[in-house]
Amino acid sequence: AHADSTVTLYGLIDVNVTRYMAGSKSGADDNWMVNDGVVNGLNGSRWGIKTIEDLGGGLKANVVAEAGLNADTGTLGQGGLAFGRQVYVGLSDAKLGEIRVGRQYILEDSVMWQSDPFGNALSLNPGTAVTNKGKSLPFWLNAPRANNIVQYRTPDFSGFSMQFQIAPGEGTADRFHGIGGVYQAGAVYAGVSYEWNKPRNGGDDKSNESLTIAANYNFGPVKLLGGVQRNRNLTTTSGNGAFTGTNLTVATDTSFVAHDTDNYTVGFEAPVGNWTFGGNYSNVKYKNDGGSVSATLGKAGLGVRYGFSKMTFLYASASMSTGDLKDYISQERTVQLGLRKAF
Amino acid sequence: AHADSTVTLYGLIDVNVTRYMAGSKSGADDNWMVNDGVVNGLNGSRWGIKTIEDLGGGLKANVVAEAGLNADTGTLGQGGLAFGRQVYVGLSDAKLGEIRVGRQYILEDSVMWQSDPFGNALSLNPGTAVTNKGKSLPFWLNAPRANNIVQYRTPDFSGFSMQFQIAPGEGTADRFHGIGGVYQAGAVYAGVSYEWNKPRNGGDDKSNESLTIAANYNFGPVKLLGGVQRNRNLTTTSGNGAFTGTNLTVATDTSFVAHDTDNYTVGFEAPVGNWTFGGNYSNVKYKNDGGSVSATLGKAGLGVRYGFSKMTFLYASASMSTGDLKDYISQERTVQLGLRKAF
Amino acid sequence: AHADSTVTLYGLIDVNVTRYMAGSKSGADDNWMVNDGVVNGLNGSRWGIKTIEDLGGGLKANVVAEAGLNADTGTLGQGGLAFGRQVYVGLSDAKLGEIRVGRQYILEDSVMWQSDPFGNALSLNPGTAVTNKGKSLPFWLNAPRANNIVQYRTPDFSGFSMQFQIAPGEGTADRFHGIGGVYQAGAVYAGVSYEWNKPRNGGDDKSNESLTIAANYNFGPVKLLGGVQRNRNLTTTSGNGAFTGTNLTVATDTSFVAHDTDNYTVGFEAPVGNWTFGGNYSNVKYKNDGGSVSATLGKAGLGVRYGFSKMTFLYASASMSTGDLKDYISQERTVQLGLRKAF
Repeated sequence: AHADSTVTLYGLIDVNVTRYMAGSKSGADDNWMVNDGVVNGLNGSRWGIKTIEDLGGGLKANVVAEAGLNADTGTLGQGGLAFGRQVYVGLSDAKLGEIRVGRQYILEDSVMWQSDPFGNALSLNPGTAVTNKGKSLPFWLNAPRANNIVQYRTPDFSGFSMQFQIAPGEGTADRFHGIGGVYQAGAVYAGVSYEWNKPRNGGDDKSNESLTIAANYNFGPVKLLGGVQRNRNLTTTSGNGAFTGTNLTVATDTSFVAHDTDNYTVGFEAPVGNWTFGGNYSNVKYKNDGGSVSATLGKAGLGVRYGFSKMTFLYASASMSTGDLKDYISQERTVQLGLRKAF
Repeated sequence: AHADSTVTLYGLIDVNVTRYMAGSKSGADDNWMVNDGVVNGLNGSRWGIKTIEDLGGGLKANVVAEAGLNADTGTLGQGGLAFGRQVYVGLSDAKLGEIRVGRQYILEDSVMWQSDPFGNALSLNPGTAVTNKGKSLPFWLNAPRANNIVQYRTPDFSGFSMQFQIAPGEGTADRFHGIGGVYQAGAVYAGVSYEWNKPRNGGDDKSNESLTIAANYNFGPVKLLGGVQRNRNLTTTSGNGAFTGTNLTVATDTSFVAHDTDNYTVGFEAPVGNWTFGGNYSNVKYKNDGGSVSATLGKAGLGVRYGFSKMTFLYASASMSTGDLKDYISQERTVQLGLRKAF
Repeated sequence: AHADSTVTLYGLIDVNVTRYMAGSKSGADDNWMVNDGVVNGLNGSRWGIKTIEDLGGGLKANVVAEAGLNADTGTLGQGGLAFGRQVYVGLSDAKLGEIRVGRQYILEDSVMWQSDPFGNALSLNPGTAVTNKGKSLPFWLNAPRANNIVQYRTPDFSGFSMQFQIAPGEGTADRFHGIGGVYQAGAVYAGVSYEWNKPRNGGDDKSNESLTIAANYNFGPVKLLGGVQRNRNLTTTSGNGAFTGTNLTVATDTSFVAHDTDNYTVGFEAPVGNWTFGGNYSNVKYKNDGGSVSATLGKAGLGVRYGFSKMTFLYASASMSTGDLKDYISQERTVQLGLRKAF
């Protein structure tokens, strides 16, 4: 182990106080909670180590090891993983692109991040699961990372780039595949990702097919953002890229198992001095296998962020639910106030 | 994540070798053990990250993320928490005081720290639980930290300051409240804390009421220290601020459940060159609900610390027990030798 | 906690892609896997903190806290320990030698490290367990570390040094003892270690006696390496220094329990510019209690390492098995390609 002067220790702590107002048929009480930022804060608390080594001739090697943590309780994030956010080693060439191997973000996450104000944050985050009659139910895809990923990223060609991921699947996990494309230049961003699972040992049955498209345009005084996501053949058991920590049973007075979802989100972001205001509306339509039964859940959110510096923000947000499921979820309405400091 | 040049990586490793001589009716054998400093060493081993950012105009933001670890076995401390010692984000104003949110020390810990030599350390530490016929039994309150705390700390007014804590309680944990006051100036310290639980969802039943008072005076050649603690309505189930990892059954030839305890400690600390000597006597009286049955346990300890530098200490201590329970505990007498280095 | 400018944050990430070809009677399938370097990579991924403080007059204090991690999945190594690789505090004197206390490498590991090319690495590592009809079976001793160790290391006397270790054993773990001697000067290395367990509370029954001898000589263009290991009275239950995570049942068409093993390895290492080539052959003979039944397993390996810098390596290796057990193990043949970057 050689010491490298370019190693960076970084992270952030984000904690908020949130009031949850439960839907009348949710079976839950209204509650105050102190939450880590990973639950609808500006960012999930984390610490990490990163380094980039210039090997000459356009070649670079890099390492990222990033742990999520819950600052409200001192526990590890991502279900207790030591470096649950990401940990990989990469080798990049200015002309040939980059290879990364390890636990990594799947492509959907960075695309969806561009579809909503503040970037998958506050109670405006379409990726946050809801509690539907006591059980966690996904909203947009909430499986931001996967294990054992080998990724190839092309260089940037005049704003265009592509990304490819594969994880062989180990133990009971399915094989995971992802492909993404991004155009980003000046005021415009447009991105798409497509990801799917296949059984590790043969068979053609695709599961957890997820197509995500996002775009935003920065007019200066205001940035408009939007996206759609189409999920098909959902399971919670295939490992990589599947919904985790949730179930797929959609419960109103009756219930059914979600097999597919169709999602959209539209929003805006507007900076005013040290303040940034944002708002959005996101919607998910859950459908059973065959599509004969469906139910909708929507969420409208407003948020504001005050920057003391580039590292330190105070934030607040509020959200309210709409659609068939709104009375059945514990987070029908929320208000929160939080503090986030990076280092 | 932005790199901040002021981020500090800090910690310490403290390991000791201890000989335990068991009470004749404790059911335990005498034993040699290699222990982390968290078990009666100078300090519990730890590593952490901290940073303070000056935001101008007397405003500062700060972050602490501190993990406890057991250097004898490589495990995490505090029952396996990743950042079990403390992890919070704070915002302070020179005139208005400071807000901190996250997992934090409860107020009792810092008050008690001033009541005994070396600061809750060595076998002189009144906060260390004992093993009473095979079961862990609390001595002084040993719940130094709690989750989900929102804390307000006043500025220092000519040596006076106050602290207020509340944790809403989450899941099955009770709501936690704490209030503290400290006077510290020159050679004198005096502090008091009062902390209690209330049921999260209604009801007025207080539990785990803990009043701690400590004082010390530094005469120069010697510092005298003392404190009392009064615990009422003890439970082990209310979460924040309750005894953890212990039970409340006090076992001699018969046994009863402790509902209240009355505790005191007196001691001295004397520096001689690079050496510091200290001794104290601590006593706990356990009482059942109503006070009809009681039992006492006392501990006399002597310790010495040799400072190679401000970072590195060699230490030794010995203790012996007194009172009704002394023959029934595994740590009736102890001797230890340890090494502690900070970084 | 005082900040020390000399604290070093260090580590490495090593991930590889490996193809396993299973023996015909192993009951396993051929598989692709993405593995952390700890599974036959160049090194196990890790992060750590270390510091040395010069106390003057030849006296130094040091701390090492080193965590193993699996970069393929983000989990902790060593069965989930926070600082599973090593964590100790030490005090050394130029003339008197060094004392270290904490979780440490046992002596066998550093001796064996000198017996094979690349140092217990790649698919050439004799310390890697195999999967024998679905169960993990040890090859060479794979218990590189133990808890609660008090170690004394002599200074270097013209290339000679000795090491002594004892761990008192705690809970159900046996008492652990180790003694080692090393001669290292110029082109030659020769080392020996002997380690054994005894019951914590009395009795003379030795278990897990392990004698390891290694030597190598660097001719310049090529380094020759070799070693033998003799293990007696094997158990998996005595704690420190015993085989961990494995069982001792050797399964072919019949099966028996290994009580003793006799092991040897021979190999070479040859640097050519930025490339290093290496190859070896290792063999284990498993014997039941009394020696009436035995079975052999051998492994031949070839590896190559390309150094982009002192920190960053690309590597590849292949191995094939020989002996009575070769058809019964999941790793009968392997090929791998990996990337490792230190910081």
